[in-house]
Amino acid sequence: MPRTAFFISDGTGITAETLGRSLLSQFENTDFIQVTKPYIDTLDKARSLVGIIESTAERDGIRPIVIDTIVDQAIRSIVAEAPAFKVDIFSTFLAPLEEELETHSTYTVGRTHAIGRDDVYMHRIEAVNFALDNDDGARTHQYQEADIILIGVSRCGKTPTSLYLALQFGIRAANYPLTEDDLDENGILNLPPSLANHRHKLFGLTIDARRLSAIRTERRPDSRYCSMDQCMQEIGQAEALYRRHNIPFIDTTRFSIEEISTRMMNETGLQRRFSPR
Amino acid sequence: MPRTAFFISDGTGITAETLGRSLLSQFENTDFIQVTKPYIDTLDKARSLVGIIESTAERDGIRPIVIDTIVDQAIRSIVAEAPAFKVDIFSTFLAPLEEELETHSTYTVGRTHAIGRDDVYMHRIEAVNFALDNDDGARTHQYQEADIILIGVSRCGKTPTSLYLALQFGIRAANYPLTEDDLDENGILNLPPSLANHRHKLFGLTIDARRLSAIRTERRPDSRYCSMDQCMQEIGQAEALYRRHNIPFIDTTRFSIEEISTRMMNETGLQRRFSPR
Repeated sequence: MPRTAFFISDGTGITAETLGRSLLSQFENTDFIQVTKPYIDTLDKARSLVGIIESTAERDGIRPIVIDTIVDQAIRSIVAEAPAFKVDIFSTFLAPLEEELETHSTYTVGRTHAIGRDDVYMHRIEAVNFALDNDDGARTHQYQEADIILIGVSRCGKTPTSLYLALQFGIRAANYPLTEDDLDENGILNLPPSLANHRHKLFGLTIDARRLSAIRTERRPDSRYCSMDQCMQEIGQAEALYRRHNIPFIDTTRFSIEEISTRMMNETGLQRRFSPR
Repeated sequence: MPRTAFFISDGTGITAETLGRSLLSQFENTDFIQVTKPYIDTLDKARSLVGIIESTAERDGIRPIVIDTIVDQAIRSIVAEAPAFKVDIFSTFLAPLEEELETHSTYTVGRTHAIGRDDVYMHRIEAVNFALDNDDGARTHQYQEADIILIGVSRCGKTPTSLYLALQFGIRAANYPLTEDDLDENGILNLPPSLANHRHKLFGLTIDARRLSAIRTERRPDSRYCSMDQCMQEIGQAEALYRRHNIPFIDTTRFSIEEISTRMMNETGLQRRFSPR
C-alpha cells in the first residue's frame, strides 16, 4: 500500500521536492506516490489543496506526508489544517537560524537566477550557447575558451552532461566524440590533433558495454554500431587512450547526470561561473 | 562582514545546497560566502574539512553555518566536531519520519536517475535530443511529437528553457523563433503555417525590451537587431499574436529558467516524463 507524499511550495517547489526526495529515499522499503504542488500562493489555492490532501488521506486509508517550504504565514496556517504528517522545513530551521544570525528572517518567496539578473543569466546563456556550438565535435577551434572538454565514444552521455554543466554551473563544456579513426592504434598513441593542445582540459566518459549497446539500439537497431562487439571494442580503446594520456575519466553507468557533473567539478576543481544567490 | 556557510554532503551536495540556499535567502540583510563541499565520503575527507571549517571560523572571527546531508554515522560524528552552527537536516527529520512510517531509515547515500536506470535515462536523453533537433525552428515536422512548443522573439530565453524542461522533467520541448515575417500584420492574424496545427501546444515567452536589447547587444552590438526600437516593436507584435490566438505566455524578465519552466508545467498541466526515484 503506497503512501502519498506532497511537496508543497509557494514558489517553484524545487527545494521542497529536492529535500523531500532525499528524505524519502532513505526509506527504501516504503512505496511512495510523490506529488509536487508548486505555486500555492493564494488562500484559495491552499484551501483547495487541503481538500486534495483530505481525499488522498481517505483514499489511502492513511494520512499523507507533507513536506513544505511555504513562506507566507496565512497560507501556511491553512495548509497546517490538512490531515497529514508535516515536515515543516522553514519553521524548523528559521527560528534557530534567526537566533544564530541575530537578525529576523525576511520571509520572502525564493527568487533565484532571474533573467533580469544580468550577470547570472548571461553566464548561463553563454555557457548553453557554448555547449550547443561545441557539441559532438562540431567545432574544435573554440577549445581555447572551453572550461572542460568531454570526450568519449558515441552515446556515452557527453551531450546531456555538457548541457547540465552549462545550465547548472555556467561551465563552458565542449564535447568531442571519439570515433574509430581516433581509436586506432596510432590514435591511442597520439591524441587527435584538435585535442592534443588541450590535454589538461580533457575529461573522459566511459560506460558499461551492455548499457551502451542498449542505448545505441534505441537509436540504430540491428546495426554494427549497436553490437556488443563494437561497443566493447570502442570502450576498451577509449579507456586505453585515457590511461595512456593520464586523462581522468568516469564510468557513467551507475551515475546520474547530476552525479557525473558534480563529480567532474569536484575532481577537476572547476569553479562554477555564477554563484547562486 | 560576511558569514561563511558550508553545504556538506557525502553525495552530490545538491540537496544540502538547494535547501541551504533557500534558508539563507530568507536572510536578505546578511552577506554569506556559500561553499559547497560534496563527496565528503571518507573519514580523511571529513577530518580535512573540519580543518577548513576551523580556519574559516578563525578568519571570519565567527563560527560558520554548516548545512549537511551526510548519511554515514562515522563521518557525521567527525563533522559534528567542527566549530560551526549546524543545521543537520537528516537527523532532524529522519527520526520523526521513522516513527510516522513505522520503519527504519536505510541510511543510503542518494542515487538518483542513474544512467543505468533504463527508463529514466532514456526519457532524459530522448527529451534532450528532441530539444536539440527542434531548437530554433530548425525543424517543424516533428511538432506532432512535441509536448510543448515554445515561441517568442530571438533571444527571449527559449533555448535554455527547452533544455531545462528536457533535462529536469523529460519534457519534449520544441522552440520556434518568431521572426519579422511571422510578425507582420498578416502573421498576427494568421499563425505561421507550421504552428497553426499545434495551437494547443504553443506557449509564448515575452521579455522586457530593455533587457532584450542588452542581451542582443552581447551577441550583435550596434545592430538594428539590438536597438530598442526593434526590440520594442517585435515584443509588441509577439504579445499581440499571443493575445489574438489565446496563447498563454510568460514574461521571462523577472524569472529564472527554473521558475519559467515550473510555471509552464504548472499552467499547462504537463506531466513530467519520469518520476524521480
